[in-house]
This record gives sequence, structure tokens and C-alpha cells, in this order.
Amino acid sequence: MTSERTTGRGGGQRRSRSDGERTRGAILRAAASLATVDGLDGLSIGNLAAAIGISKSGLYAHFGAKEELQLATVAEAEQILRAEVIEPALAAAPGLAQLAAVCDAFLSYVRRGVFPGGCFFASTSMEMSGRPGPVRDRLAAIQSEFTALLRSFAATAIKQRELPASEDPDRLAFELHAILLGADSKFLLHDDPAVLDLAQRVVHLRLGLDDAKSKRTAPAKQRKPRAT
Amino acid sequence: MTSERTTGRGGGQRRSRSDGERTRGAILRAAASLATVDGLDGLSIGNLAAAIGISKSGLYAHFGAKEELQLATVAEAEQILRAEVIEPALAAAPGLAQLAAVCDAFLSYVRRGVFPGGCFFASTSMEMSGRPGPVRDRLAAIQSEFTALLRSFAATAIKQRELPASEDPDRLAFELHAILLGADSKFLLHDDPAVLDLAQRVVHLRLGLDDAKSKRTAPAKQRKPRAT
Repeated sequence: MTSERTTGRGGGQRRSRSDGERTRGAILRAAASLATVDGLDGLSIGNLAAAIGISKSGLYAHFGAKEELQLATVAEAEQILRAEVIEPALAAAPGLAQLAAVCDAFLSYVRRGVFPGGCFFASTSMEMSGRPGPVRDRLAAIQSEFTALLRSFAATAIKQRELPASEDPDRLAFELHAILLGADSKFLLHDDPAVLDLAQRVVHLRLGLDDAKSKRTAPAKQRKPRAT
Repeated sequence: MTSERTTGRGGGQRRSRSDGERTRGAILRAAASLATVDGLDGLSIGNLAAAIGISKSGLYAHFGAKEELQLATVAEAEQILRAEVIEPALAAAPGLAQLAAVCDAFLSYVRRGVFPGGCFFASTSMEMSGRPGPVRDRLAAIQSEFTALLRSFAATAIKQRELPASEDPDRLAFELHAILLGADSKFLLHDDPAVLDLAQRVVHLRLGLDDAKSKRTAPAKQRKPRAT
């Protein structure tokens, strides 16, 4: 929105607004990737500049202070989560299919290495949980929204009798989210994709979808590239 | 075993071996606590010295290099996990009771804030998963041993018909571990002990132990197996 200054990398004198936005987006995607490996707290203007080969002054033009950069990075990662995990799920039929789809899409997003250090929110939430402030608050809010989404899919599935009436949507949302987080963490630590297969099987069994059936109903095509 | 040099803190000229060991143990407990908040990578001789009020040269006498300090810290944390989580479980009756006990003990260890940043292994494994080397290898081995323990408890429970024959010990071990990790992560991010209650309910339901029963038996011994 504000007129962009030239960056250290680009040679042009005047850049259009969309050029500036593209640059900003590219910086933030790099920042989000870096944060899944070095942590959000390791994300200084200095080391981001070094990692992406842009001058520090160029970065200062985009982000004044470290916290601003962290918050912008979280916002960028949220958009990526939305595109990779939430939108594919919303495209499925409401209820059980959405619940399975969101889990499949999450496991696919981890498997495809959308971020090099696994789910952005799993790693940064763990890192920031002991550091009160706006960044932690934002991460907590995003995690709550994700759990609420799982809960609403579960509630619809129960209402539609795709899941037993005895099922508790809060409990199920917690369980599924824990399975996704656990899969992410174990996959990364052991560098073993088999753990993602196991997690998918666990999710499908938990939802009463047998493997043959789940292959048919998992709408977000977990196997291959992009879910959207 | 090497003769201890005096630390910057202690005034004595010659310290007995056990004094030296006590000092070393106290340093490592402080290091483990610090690592759950600032990360294992944030654990330099310098900031540990600042945090515990000991001179850097005193610390160098105990630990030569950063990696040595990190590995010693992991070893100390492993002893704490053993004392807090594994030993109480081993004291229960083999099988289902041990499986419930290890989960209960883990949730209690998180709830009681044994480490300020939750489970040492959950936070440091997430942090180190993208950093290959001896520290990551050790963390991965400890996590594998913990999963193997859950698996062996589950296998015994199945053999004793406390769990259905259709249950898969690997899958169940993964599920339970994920629930524990998820509970730790959400508890820390939201600072909300209710998530630990929820996790305990989920574990008990998963194991076919109803709440009234589990409340009586929770700590270490499960009285009654469940029906299939």
C-alpha cells in the first residue's frame, strides 16, 4: 500500500505496487520456511537478509522491527495453511468427509515439505509458548481456530449421524489434532514418512473409515502434489 | 571423576567428588529447565552461566563445549523423565495398568511443571529435528525408547486380553504418544490445565477405562481391566 522502496536485490528504480507486494510475499515465505528450522525467535532482520540474499536495509523498508517481521511471517504462514489444508477440506462434503479431508490435507502438507521444518504452527507454537506477547497470542488464536474448525466438522458429522451420538466433538477435535501434531513431530525427528501413513490409518480408523473406503472418500487427494 | 575445580560460586578450595557431582547435577537440572524455554540451541555456556549465577570458567570446568553441555543436559533430562514418568509406570501391574499409568504420570509431570516449558523431550525434539547431529540422534533414540515402552505395555495388555486382539500395539503406542505430545503442546500454548484433563479422559476412554474407575485408580495402579 505504501509506495515500496527499491530493495537491495531488485535493480528497478520505481516498482509497481504489485511488484512490492510480490517481493514482500517472497520475503515472508522465505521467513516462514526459515522459522520452521531456526525458530521464530531466530528470525532477525539480519539472518533473514543473509538467508535470502537481500540487504538488511531492503528488509527494514518492509519490516521495521523484529516483532513486526514475526507477526507478518505468522500471517503469511496462516495463508499457506489455509490454502494447503483448510480450503481443500472445505471443498469436501460437510461433515465426516470434511473431517477426514482436513486431516489428510494436513498430513499431505507435512509430507510434501511445504515448510522444511514441518507444520509451521506446530514448531513455532512449541517455541513461543513460553514467551508471552503478541506473537504467542496470534499463534494461540490460530491454533484455537483450527481446533474449532475440526470441532465444527465433527459436530456436523454427529448431527448427520456419520459418527455416533455418543461422540464428543471437543474430545474428537482434540484427539485428531493431537494425532496430526504427533505425526508431524515424529516424522521430522525420525525423518520417516511411514509415521504419516500410520497417522492416516489412525485417523481413518478413528472416524470409522476403513482403508478401502477412505481411499475413495478422502477428497483432498493426499498422495500427490498440491491439494488445491 | 576428574578432580573438580572450584566453581566461581563455591568458595572451597578442594571439593570432594560428591560435591563436584552435586554441582554438576544442579547445573544440568538448571540447563534442562532453561532448554525447555530458550531451546537446547540457546543453551550456551555463557547464558547458562548468567542464568544460574556461576562463572563461565566454572562451567567450562564441567563442560568443554556446547555440544557436550547439550548432551549432558539431555542425559540429565532423561533421568528426570525416568524418575517422573517411567518408574511410576513400571511400579503398576504389567499390561493395561502400566499403559494407563505411564500416560497419567506423563500428564502429571507436565501439569506439575517439572520443566517450566513442559516435557523436555517434546520441546527439544521439535527444536532439534532439523539439526542433524549427535544431539538430535540422542533425542530420537530416547523418543523411540519411549514409544517402544508404550508398545510393550500395549502388547502385554493385548496378550492378557485386557485389550481386544484386534488392537495393534504399534498403532496404539503412536496414538497414545501423540495424545501426550498434543496435550503438552496445547497446555503450554494456552496455559490451560483443562487440556490435560481432557487428554486424560481421552486416554482412559481409548483404553476402555471409564472415568469413575480411572479416578479411583489413576495414579499408578489400575484396578480393573476393561471389557473388550
